[in-house]
Amino acid sequence: MSSAAETIRNKKMPVVAIAGATGAVGVELMACLEQRKFPLAELRLLASARSAGKTMKFRGSDIAVRELTDGSLDGVDVALFSAGGAQSKRFAPVAVRAGAVVVDNSSAFRMSHDVPLVIPEINASAIAQHKGIIANPNCVAIVAATPLWPIHQRARIKRLVMSTYQAASGAGAAAMEELGESTRAFLEGRAFQPKVLPHPYAFNVFSHNTKVDPETGYNEEEIKVMNETRKIFGEPSLRVTATCVRVPVLRAHCIALNIELETPLTPAEARALLASAPGVRVVDELERNYFPMPVDATGIDEVLVGRIRRDLSDPTGHSLSLFVAGDQLRKGAALNAVQIAERLLS
Amino acid sequence: MSSAAETIRNKKMPVVAIAGATGAVGVELMACLEQRKFPLAELRLLASARSAGKTMKFRGSDIAVRELTDGSLDGVDVALFSAGGAQSKRFAPVAVRAGAVVVDNSSAFRMSHDVPLVIPEINASAIAQHKGIIANPNCVAIVAATPLWPIHQRARIKRLVMSTYQAASGAGAAAMEELGESTRAFLEGRAFQPKVLPHPYAFNVFSHNTKVDPETGYNEEEIKVMNETRKIFGEPSLRVTATCVRVPVLRAHCIALNIELETPLTPAEARALLASAPGVRVVDELERNYFPMPVDATGIDEVLVGRIRRDLSDPTGHSLSLFVAGDQLRKGAALNAVQIAERLLS
Repeated sequence: MSSAAETIRNKKMPVVAIAGATGAVGVELMACLEQRKFPLAELRLLASARSAGKTMKFRGSDIAVRELTDGSLDGVDVALFSAGGAQSKRFAPVAVRAGAVVVDNSSAFRMSHDVPLVIPEINASAIAQHKGIIANPNCVAIVAATPLWPIHQRARIKRLVMSTYQAASGAGAAAMEELGESTRAFLEGRAFQPKVLPHPYAFNVFSHNTKVDPETGYNEEEIKVMNETRKIFGEPSLRVTATCVRVPVLRAHCIALNIELETPLTPAEARALLASAPGVRVVDELERNYFPMPVDATGIDEVLVGRIRRDLSDPTGHSLSLFVAGDQLRKGAALNAVQIAERLLS
Repeated sequence: MSSAAETIRNKKMPVVAIAGATGAVGVELMACLEQRKFPLAELRLLASARSAGKTMKFRGSDIAVRELTDGSLDGVDVALFSAGGAQSKRFAPVAVRAGAVVVDNSSAFRMSHDVPLVIPEINASAIAQHKGIIANPNCVAIVAATPLWPIHQRARIKRLVMSTYQAASGAGAAAMEELGESTRAFLEGRAFQPKVLPHPYAFNVFSHNTKVDPETGYNEEEIKVMNETRKIFGEPSLRVTATCVRVPVLRAHCIALNIELETPLTPAEARALLASAPGVRVVDELERNYFPMPVDATGIDEVLVGRIRRDLSDPTGHSLSLFVAGDQLRKGAALNAVQIAERLLS
């Protein structure tokens, strides 16, 4: 039996590690553990050698960051990985061998057949099938799928067209910094050379900065979103397309969703379904022109959903349009990972 | 015969007026007239009483702004209106009675049966049917329709789903100012109360700030885009939907376009069509991840188009995705109006 399983069976408090503690998601993981009073015997903060020795505050105490090495994972029960795909590939198996259950925020294992890909509001039951690693989905997939799931359960989504408005945070803390710095430079009339992202970010919009597949023309982010949505829904043949775009926003993603349903659903029915759905908050005030926005989604747990309307381009009444906003670092990454860890322990 | 027709028949240089000369589009109209060496005997700058007396530079000379009144339109051959719908409704008929042809940038007359709605690259022939007023389309309709037209001609668009990334300029110079000011305040940690737009704009995204129809849930901007695209294409039953969203960008709109075609068209065929289409520039460098961006679309005449790919959610191969960027003030407003005026004179 793994030490994690033993710890959980004996209802002992687990040793939790964060790999990638100093990154944007790492910081948010600590905030979620603290705010949600996650039961733990020890929090171990792991990062690259460069960050080792820094201290970070958790529950009022300073914790020294240690270098992520094989030995650093000894005795860990739950390892929350957010240090990039290469580090996950290298160290997640080490953590599993050391007895930990890994919740991995990278894309390294998401599409592996023996790795559950989990949004607790949708497929928490898949957690039980893990073989040491549970994958945390792509942020866009989480922000889209959470509100789409209740609609899919009721009316079955046949086709899904997503256009994203993605924040800097998905590219890490340095990208958020670059957005601020380049915008400041623009306003002061100074030149600015982008270092983190491939294009100017100040008052600009650009296609997602992942590699574009020369065959299909889709970028890696889009492929992730499409494949992961299918896997999370357990619908391998769901027809889905995505256009992933970065906008000058710090940490909340928006997505325009166009969905074609098997069974017609009125906007009022969709609104009622969403109003009682977990992890979702309806923000759909037509009279005030008040709908989901990054400023309102930032720092909260729920995905905001609004602009719920019949798609007038489908005369059969089987299509709906929605607009959603969700905190990329929170529900799109750290919160979802901590929710998975909570289910592991419960 | 109107004085405009007489002027044109006699190949005399026309008297041109700009109503709304001090606005964002007015300033760009002057720039377009100057850069394109528009033949004119006199340029008359008209605006509200508040702006009367200001001077503006045109071809190296100062022109004093006059108040837009009934009398101010006497002797005008071509009147370019961009002073808002109310002013157009009030003064465009006056200009027509005074003998002018009006090119109106407001939405006041766009859907009137006896008013041509023109993008010269698409339906220049409709100009001849004017009865004194020619309407300049909505900026999103122009930026989307210009690259879609060659595709529609070849393969017939059956259904069109648009998600927009709209700049501040569509809400006027004051909105552009507010975007800059609110962003500066955000970066300096100062509070900022929006005055021009209904929502915070700094590092935020929000649904378009036009009235939302309580019946359909669509906002006025979306309805304009949908109806105008149908009218410009001469396809009253074209199935089209739009989600119009403002992003923190100064003056170029982007649009994610998802199109379903009557006849299959490969991305390579679409790219070739677009490469030779007027008013369009293909920016579709997959290897460099270089696609249409507001920073590149700003200040140029062409609409940029890229991300040309097969929509993988349509297994029949009848659907394509595109991403476009166009200068809202230029091709989206002033340039298109001046192009219409050029056709009037030619």
